[in-house]
Amino acid sequence: MVSAQSFVQRILKNQPDEPVVAKASVYAPANIALIKYWGKRDILLNLPNTASLSISLGKKGTHTEISRASGDADEIILNDQLLSCDNFFVTRLQQYLDLFRPHPQFYFSVQTLSTVPVAAGLASSASGFAAMILALRQFFGWSLPEYQLSLLARLGSGSACRSLWQGFVYWQQGEAADGFDSYAMPLADTWPDLRIGLVIISDKAKATSSRDGMLHTVKTSPLYTIWPEVVAADLARIRPAISSRDFTALGEVAEGNAMAMHATALAARPGVCYSLPQTIAMMQKVWELRGSGVEVYFTQDAGPNLKLLFLAKDSEVMQQVFSDMVVIAPF
Amino acid sequence: MVSAQSFVQRILKNQPDEPVVAKASVYAPANIALIKYWGKRDILLNLPNTASLSISLGKKGTHTEISRASGDADEIILNDQLLSCDNFFVTRLQQYLDLFRPHPQFYFSVQTLSTVPVAAGLASSASGFAAMILALRQFFGWSLPEYQLSLLARLGSGSACRSLWQGFVYWQQGEAADGFDSYAMPLADTWPDLRIGLVIISDKAKATSSRDGMLHTVKTSPLYTIWPEVVAADLARIRPAISSRDFTALGEVAEGNAMAMHATALAARPGVCYSLPQTIAMMQKVWELRGSGVEVYFTQDAGPNLKLLFLAKDSEVMQQVFSDMVVIAPF
Repeated sequence: MVSAQSFVQRILKNQPDEPVVAKASVYAPANIALIKYWGKRDILLNLPNTASLSISLGKKGTHTEISRASGDADEIILNDQLLSCDNFFVTRLQQYLDLFRPHPQFYFSVQTLSTVPVAAGLASSASGFAAMILALRQFFGWSLPEYQLSLLARLGSGSACRSLWQGFVYWQQGEAADGFDSYAMPLADTWPDLRIGLVIISDKAKATSSRDGMLHTVKTSPLYTIWPEVVAADLARIRPAISSRDFTALGEVAEGNAMAMHATALAARPGVCYSLPQTIAMMQKVWELRGSGVEVYFTQDAGPNLKLLFLAKDSEVMQQVFSDMVVIAPF
Repeated sequence: MVSAQSFVQRILKNQPDEPVVAKASVYAPANIALIKYWGKRDILLNLPNTASLSISLGKKGTHTEISRASGDADEIILNDQLLSCDNFFVTRLQQYLDLFRPHPQFYFSVQTLSTVPVAAGLASSASGFAAMILALRQFFGWSLPEYQLSLLARLGSGSACRSLWQGFVYWQQGEAADGFDSYAMPLADTWPDLRIGLVIISDKAKATSSRDGMLHTVKTSPLYTIWPEVVAADLARIRPAISSRDFTALGEVAEGNAMAMHATALAARPGVCYSLPQTIAMMQKVWELRGSGVEVYFTQDAGPNLKLLFLAKDSEVMQQVFSDMVVIAPF
């Protein structure tokens, strides 16, 4: 079994390990998966059971600055709040930073600002770890191909490997036990008319994290065994839908894939239900709208919020129906 | 392929076909499946893809009276209302009665009173068709073993074959193409402390009927292929739970089986969601209660209502939490 530490050492073996700038300052977008990442074959290396495909969220993401801390501990400031060292987020981030310290007494000062609600299924950990690896690259002056940055981001959070680019991003599953072929790459396709609507149903932290829900589902859901086949079929349908800008196909596949993911979680024992009552009410609203001719679809990650997919021509009516929706034009 | 008509003729070939009483008057209980019937291998004969197991609901069910109609059409009175012939329920019932008319100009007068809300996932069609076959037996004076009555009830509505008895009832899948081995039988086990709580979230007719949702799920849900294995495993766990009165095992299996059934429906393309926002709110309430030590589980059929399973010792606290709940003691 490959450890995360040896994985990192292999990539960074000829790279500088002293800071080349006093402060690094970067940004990475959040992303939402249209074909979901749901289930790992290797927990330490975040190797997925399937490929996945996402779209990045433009200016919704994470701004991160790092420098060397003056004291003898990491300083982590999230959204202008200094976090204490027993904070879950701090622990996870420090474990990640451990992989990159030039020596054990090297501490980081991290200032990170998320423009998406934390832990509400809006992939804040994806943009967070993607921004972190971009910041480390700038800080140490690494010269690495992008796919290797994606490999490193993946160690922090699986879906972070897709947050290094804007637009459509494909994370290939990979087959190698060492995980060196499981990285993301951007697709060349663009789609200027595509819109993503964010409606925050709840920005409270979830009862079950994506990580735990995923592990529990893989372990106990009798329906999970079919999931890899669902993803393979959905990817085969969504790739040509993107290339040909077939919005109906894109929407149907994305909504169906999200429903199938949540179905596997509901069928876990005991079941995991990420939906709140308001989630169901909003699904019904989407289905009604679609029945009335406004072509809108939803996707849902491991949280109660829905992300809506629609086209620019329907922006006005969509904004009327969902008055507090934030609209993103990803291209 | 066997037609419903030839199926009936085979069973009734040596039975009287003239009324022996002026009016037949019967009752059949509704039933809820603890292990669900979800998917058919033969649509005309209502042959299931799996076995299923139910519990009957005591005095919640259907009272039916039949006599010969004086006019030249069937008269169907449901809950004191004369229904017109273009009513969906009337069409379905008349097609069923067609199988049993002594001659084509023989019309029935049917008066049926349901003590459960119609079409709200509370199995009103199950008790309805079970009562109908019991009424026909009494009316014509058939002398048939019970399993053959179960076969005939099945032709009206699959789950009706389980509504001929009180208590736990097992519907064996059967293997024969002609459907003669797919019938229900009561289990000998009793459980005096078992309670079922009905909380009506909505008594409106459903957007998607069980029948349509089942067909659509079997046809389009990528997760449905695993359903027969889920049922087999759940039956293997619930049978000993019933025999040994292991309530935790009974509840876990029943809730898990219902969640898996709904999961297959959600993963259909497009998805079928029988839950309303209030359904999710009530699930959360059940999970909270269970977390606080009150052992309660739910099951859900193809509708928004939940049926709660608990033990007599918790009746008082349950009634406090769910003030408008109707409590049934099935034994």
